[in-house]
Amino acid sequence: MKILIIGAKGTIGKVVTSALEKNHEVIKAGKTSGDIQVDISDSKTIEKMFKSVGPVDSIICIAGDAKWASFNELSEDDFYIGIKSKLMGQVNLVRIGKNYLNKGGSFTLTTGILADHPVDKTTSAAMVNGGIHSFVKAVSLELSNDHRINVVSSDLVEDAKDKYEDYFPGHTPVPMNKVKDAYIKSVLGKPNGEIIRVLA
Amino acid sequence: MKILIIGAKGTIGKVVTSALEKNHEVIKAGKTSGDIQVDISDSKTIEKMFKSVGPVDSIICIAGDAKWASFNELSEDDFYIGIKSKLMGQVNLVRIGKNYLNKGGSFTLTTGILADHPVDKTTSAAMVNGGIHSFVKAVSLELSNDHRINVVSSDLVEDAKDKYEDYFPGHTPVPMNKVKDAYIKSVLGKPNGEIIRVLA
Repeated sequence: MKILIIGAKGTIGKVVTSALEKNHEVIKAGKTSGDIQVDISDSKTIEKMFKSVGPVDSIICIAGDAKWASFNELSEDDFYIGIKSKLMGQVNLVRIGKNYLNKGGSFTLTTGILADHPVDKTTSAAMVNGGIHSFVKAVSLELSNDHRINVVSSDLVEDAKDKYEDYFPGHTPVPMNKVKDAYIKSVLGKPNGEIIRVLA
Repeated sequence: MKILIIGAKGTIGKVVTSALEKNHEVIKAGKTSGDIQVDISDSKTIEKMFKSVGPVDSIICIAGDAKWASFNELSEDDFYIGIKSKLMGQVNLVRIGKNYLNKGGSFTLTTGILADHPVDKTTSAAMVNGGIHSFVKAVSLELSNDHRINVVSSDLVEDAKDKYEDYFPGHTPVPMNKVKDAYIKSVLGKPNGEIIRVLA
């Protein structure tokens, strides 16, 4: 299988990449690293990436930003950081990527626990995650060519514990192995339109 | 209680307005109708509306557009219709409106069944509804001044049956009385951070 992973060098990305490249051809995409560069907040670079990579069997996105700050401090423009990147960046990956995805191929997007259980300072991040959950359910009804789409929503992951644990009091970190399995399930299994929630 | 209803002349808005104005002072806002004009997709008009209306005890939004079309036909710009209106329009109403909401006041936003159960041609509409659900949960953790916020998510409503039933096969229309009660619960009750789902 030829698999394109956007965000292949990130905290989750490198674990998923490492697992999949044992038996598959993995093309690693990233903003500044990997085999090919893409900034998902700019749909022109998405188009350019797919033109260069050509048809694939699986597209995995483990990328996307959103601004974390108190609601009182978030400007309208701050909300658009997440909208352009994690929300519309992933929507555009599907809009454009469906034309480069082989028959029977799958999309796997990424959100996180905030969609269901937000914490302090995450009004923007929670919003874009929730948007992607409903988008995935909706678009799964319309994909053709036997395409499937799912989204993986993990709680605080073990390898990001040091960086984020202060934001997530009482959240038991999810072992990376369990996170990796959720992506494998979406890519190699049969789920479609599912929000694959990963808790410790 | 002084209550500002954005979208007061809409299908749901007029039922909610009629119920609340029996015992409260209701200011009706709309894009082209009502006591005061506002286009929620333009935050400058939101600011202007609040400056004109002054402090209120309750802000209800039953407005917001999104483009309904096949995923294959939706351009990136088409997605931004819903993002600017139903998504960021409602976020901006809270961002700006919190400065005009009296102590103990409430916000009541509006989404719909699509966030949880999308139908054909609703990738954009479902996405913005899902975004608002997670936003409401997140922002309820941060509001000060004893403010509350909830969102009402109704299935196909009785008074929109003729217009929308073809989009919603098998959806039993919700009686308007039940829809109205959900808004009353948010405004006069104590819920906070809740998605008030209204099914037949």
